Amino acid sequence: MSLQTKYLLSESQMPKFWYNIQADLPAAAPAVLHPGTMQPVGPGDLAPLFPMALIMQEVSTEREIEIPEPVRDVYRAWRPAPLYRAHRLERALGTPAKIFYKYEGVSPAGSHKPNTAVAQAFYNHDAGIRRLTTETGAGQWGTALSYAGALFGLHVDVYQVRVSFDQKPYRRAVMETYGARCVASPSNETVYGRSVLAKTPNHPGSLGIAISEAVEMAVQREDTKYALGSVLNHVLLHQTIIGLEAMEQMQMADAWPDVVVACAGGGSNFAGIAFPFMGQALRGGQKSRIVAVEPAACPSLTRGRYAYDFGDTGRMTPLSKMHTLGSQFTPPSFHAGGLRYHGMAPLVSHCKQLGLLEAVAYNQVECFEAGVLFARNEGIVPAPEANHAVKGAIEEALRCKREGKGETILFNLSGHGHFDMVAYQKYFAGELSDEQYDEKELAMALAGLPSVPETA
Amino acid sequence: MSLQTKYLLSESQMPKFWYNIQADLPAAAPAVLHPGTMQPVGPGDLAPLFPMALIMQEVSTEREIEIPEPVRDVYRAWRPAPLYRAHRLERALGTPAKIFYKYEGVSPAGSHKPNTAVAQAFYNHDAGIRRLTTETGAGQWGTALSYAGALFGLHVDVYQVRVSFDQKPYRRAVMETYGARCVASPSNETVYGRSVLAKTPNHPGSLGIAISEAVEMAVQREDTKYALGSVLNHVLLHQTIIGLEAMEQMQMADAWPDVVVACAGGGSNFAGIAFPFMGQALRGGQKSRIVAVEPAACPSLTRGRYAYDFGDTGRMTPLSKMHTLGSQFTPPSFHAGGLRYHGMAPLVSHCKQLGLLEAVAYNQVECFEAGVLFARNEGIVPAPEANHAVKGAIEEALRCKREGKGETILFNLSGHGHFDMVAYQKYFAGELSDEQYDEKELAMALAGLPSVPETA
Repeated sequence: MSLQTKYLLSESQMPKFWYNIQADLPAAAPAVLHPGTMQPVGPGDLAPLFPMALIMQEVSTEREIEIPEPVRDVYRAWRPAPLYRAHRLERALGTPAKIFYKYEGVSPAGSHKPNTAVAQAFYNHDAGIRRLTTETGAGQWGTALSYAGALFGLHVDVYQVRVSFDQKPYRRAVMETYGARCVASPSNETVYGRSVLAKTPNHPGSLGIAISEAVEMAVQREDTKYALGSVLNHVLLHQTIIGLEAMEQMQMADAWPDVVVACAGGGSNFAGIAFPFMGQALRGGQKSRIVAVEPAACPSLTRGRYAYDFGDTGRMTPLSKMHTLGSQFTPPSFHAGGLRYHGMAPLVSHCKQLGLLEAVAYNQVECFEAGVLFARNEGIVPAPEANHAVKGAIEEALRCKREGKGETILFNLSGHGHFDMVAYQKYFAGELSDEQYDEKELAMALAGLPSVPETA
Repeated sequence: MSLQTKYLLSESQMPKFWYNIQADLPAAAPAVLHPGTMQPVGPGDLAPLFPMALIMQEVSTEREIEIPEPVRDVYRAWRPAPLYRAHRLERALGTPAKIFYKYEGVSPAGSHKPNTAVAQAFYNHDAGIRRLTTETGAGQWGTALSYAGALFGLHVDVYQVRVSFDQKPYRRAVMETYGARCVASPSNETVYGRSVLAKTPNHPGSLGIAISEAVEMAVQREDTKYALGSVLNHVLLHQTIIGLEAMEQMQMADAWPDVVVACAGGGSNFAGIAFPFMGQALRGGQKSRIVAVEPAACPSLTRGRYAYDFGDTGRMTPLSKMHTLGSQFTPPSFHAGGLRYHGMAPLVSHCKQLGLLEAVAYNQVECFEAGVLFARNEGIVPAPEANHAVKGAIEEALRCKREGKGETILFNLSGHGHFDMVAYQKYFAGELSDEQYDEKELAMALAGLPSVPETA
């Protein structure tokens, strides 16, 4: 009958620094390019979008970057987050493996996203910024930034992919409860939004389009900046508090992961738990296998090309070298909205190129099946995104069973599924299928990748 | 910029006993009556419904009742729950009062309900029971019992009020994810349900009808018992862990509440936080004012009669002396579904008669207004039920402001509102109104109260 064991740090054990993997990589990641000149960007080029403190974090090679006290003050509302040993899941699987999971659903927004939202809101507030623009798909990120904006007195404009805006009004209601303004994207508020609507009046929207709109709005106003919920180096940096805490908690449990598993969309929750463990190994410490799990319907790491590409559909952002399906690729509409992005974080992509991580892809239905098994044994209903991590961890545990190995598995349960029960409802009604992308569309999107001078 | 201060107990500080207020009351609560004989029930009369361990708790006068280790083992998945000081809310109100709140939304079900669901599932499992039946309105209780059932290997049948079953499919999806079976009530599965449907084929259902159905199903099978989420003494007992923890945490904060506030529907979260403080005063310790906040649309404590009544609409349950609007009263359909019950827990009612607590009633819209103010300052979106507690606490804080008093206020934030965002959406759209009950209907329901012999 014994359940999860919970490993909880005291507040005084909460990390005081984020971990920057750029300090430990054997080779620097390729430069980010200006979309106009195709030359490496300097800090000044990014100043219309981000406050200087975040730009400096983007390019920093310092190993430890201090978490400002006001950010730690907010973190303490829910951090340190618990780490659990999944005794019951292990028994249900009949595996000799030990399964641990870090649970980020305890934040007020229900996911790991506030780890960076709070930091970004702080640095913007500190720089005198009064308004933030951002994009959101299903709404996890928009919720987190709305929460952080409320706490630091910043107005937040969220451009939400229209299909989610229409189909998931309760997520929007959370953002509005925190005082944010939600706009269905494509909208009539931006030049780019109007250009999309002119061609396709009923366009359902996409993350790439919403990013273009949010960026366009941010550059127009002196008091307004843009905030991104994943992909960028500083976002990944802020998420490393997940892995740093998990390392201390694994030590409390007198265990160390043979394998670390996380889902990967833009890459932030993956990097959050994985980078500190990768860094430990890079500095000569104990090595863990690192596994990124992505959706088979949007498989940037396993099927994308490692190439320079835009972060948005409107081709307004700088170009980064990353695993990409092409910025003109529209992923099919499966339920893990947080994983529906054409590119992978440049730092994660770079680590993949360096052989520091593995990637696998799973289909939607098998991931929900894993999530239900998890919920019935561990009591927590995971978000559809997190179901990919659950599936990845279960597959590792079943491998251990076949091989008779008592390995230690650690995965990141990045958020709860309370806002996603419509997807579970469809799963139980047998209405969920494994959405597939169109091979031809992928080929076209890849053929349309921007050409970049060799010197870059 | 300083936020909430969080007061967190270590696991070893989690209470090992529930607190039973029956040990400290100056007079015993009136007996519970058998619906057939109108004579006081004995333990044997309740045996078809509950396992003997729970029946003994129902009538116990022991002050401390040990929490079994397997129950504490499950509690540790989320307990001890945090207590916060609401610095930002205080500043927003400009009050000299100190506001503290205990947060029960950290449980896997998002509310305080698992505190008793887990205990009830344990005692039933321990007695060899294999199946539980229960009712649920909005779904908080059904979710909690489904969760507990999954962990103890019990099958759970949930009779859910039809209007919620139809309108809130995501709550049902949570219960199904935990493996429970959800049935819209009134249903064709029971004699009583069929009798209701025969008269009114499209009956929207009510909590009282769903209880009748769940009770009917439980008494028919040897391996099946019934579980109730509020009202009964043993349910209130299990919830006292809230107040016991809060007492330790207030001491950590070097403060003591001048006033303790909680919302009251059936009475379980209210008793959970209030009874330990009331007991302290009854034993000669420091005295706190105790305030129960109920919805103006279902005001059993402030407008009901203190009389013997049935717990269900079908008149199958034993009769308890309580503040009641009449078991035939149908409350209007406001959004705090957990507060839509015609009666108040007999022990809470008894304490009201003894002058140990005050009661106030607030309307729906002003409660949502309070909830939104709370969310923007404290970062947590409360459940509609909990908004009543927030409103009550804010009113106390504003009174302190008028009177220039630096009192200490403690309230119970019994759950988060993640499953209730439709209600917030309507609030922002201006579509929420203050539902009123029909005075004539109330008069009729009160006139229809059962007549009970004077000897009872």
